[in-house]
Amino acid sequence: MKLSIIGLGLLGGSLALDLRKRKFADHIIGYDKNPVHSAFAKQVGLIDEEVSFEDAVAQGDIIVVAVPVSAVIKILPQILDKISDNQIVLDVASCKGVICERVKYHQKRKRYVACHPMAGTENSGPWSAISGMFDGKAFIICDAEDSDEKAVVTVKQMFEVLNMNPMFFNSFNHDIHVAYVSHIPHVASFALANTVLEKEKNEKNIFNLASGGFKSTVRLAMSNAEMWVPIFTDNKDNVMSVLDTYIEKLQDFKQLLQNNDIEGMADYINHANRVKKVLNK
Amino acid sequence: MKLSIIGLGLLGGSLALDLRKRKFADHIIGYDKNPVHSAFAKQVGLIDEEVSFEDAVAQGDIIVVAVPVSAVIKILPQILDKISDNQIVLDVASCKGVICERVKYHQKRKRYVACHPMAGTENSGPWSAISGMFDGKAFIICDAEDSDEKAVVTVKQMFEVLNMNPMFFNSFNHDIHVAYVSHIPHVASFALANTVLEKEKNEKNIFNLASGGFKSTVRLAMSNAEMWVPIFTDNKDNVMSVLDTYIEKLQDFKQLLQNNDIEGMADYINHANRVKKVLNK
Repeated sequence: MKLSIIGLGLLGGSLALDLRKRKFADHIIGYDKNPVHSAFAKQVGLIDEEVSFEDAVAQGDIIVVAVPVSAVIKILPQILDKISDNQIVLDVASCKGVICERVKYHQKRKRYVACHPMAGTENSGPWSAISGMFDGKAFIICDAEDSDEKAVVTVKQMFEVLNMNPMFFNSFNHDIHVAYVSHIPHVASFALANTVLEKEKNEKNIFNLASGGFKSTVRLAMSNAEMWVPIFTDNKDNVMSVLDTYIEKLQDFKQLLQNNDIEGMADYINHANRVKKVLNK
Repeated sequence: MKLSIIGLGLLGGSLALDLRKRKFADHIIGYDKNPVHSAFAKQVGLIDEEVSFEDAVAQGDIIVVAVPVSAVIKILPQILDKISDNQIVLDVASCKGVICERVKYHQKRKRYVACHPMAGTENSGPWSAISGMFDGKAFIICDAEDSDEKAVVTVKQMFEVLNMNPMFFNSFNHDIHVAYVSHIPHVASFALANTVLEKEKNEKNIFNLASGGFKSTVRLAMSNAEMWVPIFTDNKDNVMSVLDTYIEKLQDFKQLLQNNDIEGMADYINHANRVKKVLNK
């Protein structure tokens, strides 16, 4: 199986690492518009060959598009224009509605499988690639009925090699769900970082106090703008709506505190504690 | 050194564990108003002896008060009423202003050292006690000038045995700082959990999608109401003020997204990325 990876960042690099290790791919070729990324990926052996965009499209049995959502929208139709009926293209972006919409009527639509592996870290670049990042996490295939059945089976096998648990969604529902469990947590974290950084202008030692709790909450605030701005704009309506709910919840709490409503605050926290089940605790 | 611990929860239990292991204390006695806590602590060897509140006060060379802030305010004056000039009392609560105010003019004020070790987890109870929880974290002594100089030295030694880094604050500034780095991150996390739980009422599988990013952001939402409601009420003014700033930051982001301001969002995220230095990355 010859694997072609377009976009050699954290996700593309980590996929290369584990798909080689677990013998799903025996030859991996890669392209990144940033030559430092592809040279690094070749140097450390994430990929076997640095190739041009055209060769990456021409030569892969499976072509993984691991670039920001705005770039997927741009290059996916170009890739579909060129591939044969034996090749499969998949992407790994965090918004699926706008991408599926863009290629809905493309004559090669069936060769494309819309994927979202729910895994990552706050780091970026191929130097952040890590083995085992996907194990035990969920991966989603959207609008599977628009893809070739065998192509879906092959892609499912690929993610099962990574020990991921398959889920099937339509792209519209997917985008609502990820607004809740991924996009808004990032906004919450960026805003928290900016709140504390503003204070820090005048109080140099505030960060010396930062304990583990603070660190876990702002961890996502280290995520980069290049990836996240396109996600927010492409999932704008859902993000706006969930952000409204989040701000309302904060205002609810503020009202309880304003009123010294001890019982109300305890109820609010006890309810939030139900999130334990999410964390399997 | 005979150590007496009043309140055998996560903090009291973890202190007992490491202060014994590192030979700071050779005999540890403990009291908890919940007999299950003290029986458990005795059973697993966190403490050598379960004692009454009165004996815990009478017998300790150092008396550690590790109970919620509202309980500290109630029992600290009672403890100071009874101790000798050779005993030291310290507490470990997250709000210091209201406690220091409460005992400011007590005739035994000098025997009290107001402490805040900036360490913990989202878990509670003596069964959550862990070794090494304090290592490398900051601990704060507030209003040190109101305490006996030798008592401060002894308490500083105790926390240095735990590999903590000492900092000195006045209690007023302490409470402002912790509103930023501890109290508001908890509010942000409780509110985020409640936002997603509301959605989950109708969407049973939303949590299957929760990836590592979501989990780290809602981790603090597992913290318990018994501890946190008193913290919020006792630090009400600071929490209200920082919460206002946090809501403003979220509204700023919402405005940028509403306006499709790509550059503005990138600036917002790049600024938040500066938090990396907090995490020593």
